[in-house]
Amino acid sequence: MADFRPGAPDQQSFLNELLDSRLLIETGVPGVYGRGGDFEEVHLRVARMITRAGAPDRPERISFPPLLPRRDLETVGYLKSFPHLAASIFAFSGTEQQAAEQYDRASRHEDWSEFQLMTELVLTPAACYPVYPAIAARGRLPAGGVTVDAGSAYVFRHEPSGDPARMQMFHQREIVRIGEPETVAAWRDTWRDRAVELLRGIGLDARFDIASDPFFGRSGRMLAASQREQELKFEVVVQIAGPEPTAVASFNYHQDHFATAYGIELADGGGAHTACLGFGLERIALALFRIHGLEVETWPAAVRGELWSA
Amino acid sequence: MADFRPGAPDQQSFLNELLDSRLLIETGVPGVYGRGGDFEEVHLRVARMITRAGAPDRPERISFPPLLPRRDLETVGYLKSFPHLAASIFAFSGTEQQAAEQYDRASRHEDWSEFQLMTELVLTPAACYPVYPAIAARGRLPAGGVTVDAGSAYVFRHEPSGDPARMQMFHQREIVRIGEPETVAAWRDTWRDRAVELLRGIGLDARFDIASDPFFGRSGRMLAASQREQELKFEVVVQIAGPEPTAVASFNYHQDHFATAYGIELADGGGAHTACLGFGLERIALALFRIHGLEVETWPAAVRGELWSA
Repeated sequence: MADFRPGAPDQQSFLNELLDSRLLIETGVPGVYGRGGDFEEVHLRVARMITRAGAPDRPERISFPPLLPRRDLETVGYLKSFPHLAASIFAFSGTEQQAAEQYDRASRHEDWSEFQLMTELVLTPAACYPVYPAIAARGRLPAGGVTVDAGSAYVFRHEPSGDPARMQMFHQREIVRIGEPETVAAWRDTWRDRAVELLRGIGLDARFDIASDPFFGRSGRMLAASQREQELKFEVVVQIAGPEPTAVASFNYHQDHFATAYGIELADGGGAHTACLGFGLERIALALFRIHGLEVETWPAAVRGELWSA
Repeated sequence: MADFRPGAPDQQSFLNELLDSRLLIETGVPGVYGRGGDFEEVHLRVARMITRAGAPDRPERISFPPLLPRRDLETVGYLKSFPHLAASIFAFSGTEQQAAEQYDRASRHEDWSEFQLMTELVLTPAACYPVYPAIAARGRLPAGGVTVDAGSAYVFRHEPSGDPARMQMFHQREIVRIGEPETVAAWRDTWRDRAVELLRGIGLDARFDIASDPFFGRSGRMLAASQREQELKFEVVVQIAGPEPTAVASFNYHQDHFATAYGIELADGGGAHTACLGFGLERIALALFRIHGLEVETWPAAVRGELWSA
């Protein structure tokens, strides 16, 4: 199983403060937390602020549950790049006797995995993944392509950590653009500036950076270098806790990867490009609590005004 | 694996209408749907209406992700009653060579289950489950016990169906009461009336019923009979589609089951009782679309007023 990665000392102490103030609630598994009322409220307010910022683009809203058909994970090749982060759903299938044996072992906290079989579902690793097959199923894109606001979606990454900003299950506030290459690139550039402005508007010292994904294994290092060289991934980073700033938003330009996998075609029959933008809602909330303090009532009026404005 | 249960003819035709109007979006797995903007908006509005109704109780808000530590599922004995509905999370652990083999098989849509090992996590089967260990960890209850508003939480039931009201992944709008037996019973009775009123207020012909859970196997039939006899489970049912009304809210009185499992004690050291109330948000949204029509703009003003009132 994935090794636990301890947090840096100030990440660990920040986590302890969050737990003591009941903004986060321990479940016993690192990176899987309950959230107290103020944390939840802030994370919902950040999501709404992003909705307001994206409204001029008049996106279509489609929300997906945190489960993805296994076939889609297979189709897009996720297991090539990120086998270490993926998770699949297993379930019971068997007789009453097997169910009884499974229950007995589980009661003793022993291994009951042999009674579980792989299902058709996996945990969604990125909020944009279910969007591509849904749009592909409609046939050719309308002129100008489509913008999908995929809302706040739970995603999973199998990386237990002591850094509160590295959760295993968290919300991506996700927007997807599908269309002609230049349209998609222009959309991404608009949002890059918009995202930095938005985050600065709530008092976060946000800056923009070229980035790469945590690809698996030796060949992954080459993939990461190529991704940087082609500037396919941007991030907005903010100092939360730890030795380095943390990414709180990420822009991924997939070129024709998803469009080819699902056969998404432009209005004229040409191949589409796709890009997505995901804000990490828990990370933004954590940054706000870290910078403005654990009590929302004491936050600067301008920050509260921005978040509670509608 | 769980057998697909086809919907009744009018359930199937209702599902087709929902898909045609893009209120629901197919993923390829029955019971796992994307949701269009209007569906999402209605489901959020119903959740807020319930929040307003519960505000007088001044609940503590705690939200949990859709994953539960496996140990908790084991501790509460879920696999005794519902092995057929449970799901566990598996993930990869292995070498680069094994990852490559896993990827190759997945690319060909062949079986890659042997590379997946059981993790510490399962899918949350009921939104109240993570609440009990969190409250137990605080020590004895305060006088009067606690009321927890667990918000809108995703839960999973492994039961693929053609009935749109029987989803595998859906939101429970969940509230939990923990305290002395008579306090918990009184809370449940208050909410029973409140829930029926709330749903009638948005034009649903809701009525209250004594119910039982879908326990597994032959011994399950006895558990269900005993549950009915002791009136431990109530439901509020509404006619959506199909031959029978569908449960859209459910009240479960657990007596000392969870309190004993986690050692939750009253202020005076006595044993606590627990009860929970879950509204099925997708089912309520489906009932609204079924009864008032697929276009929200044409719904009765009183219903819109109730839902959009804050």
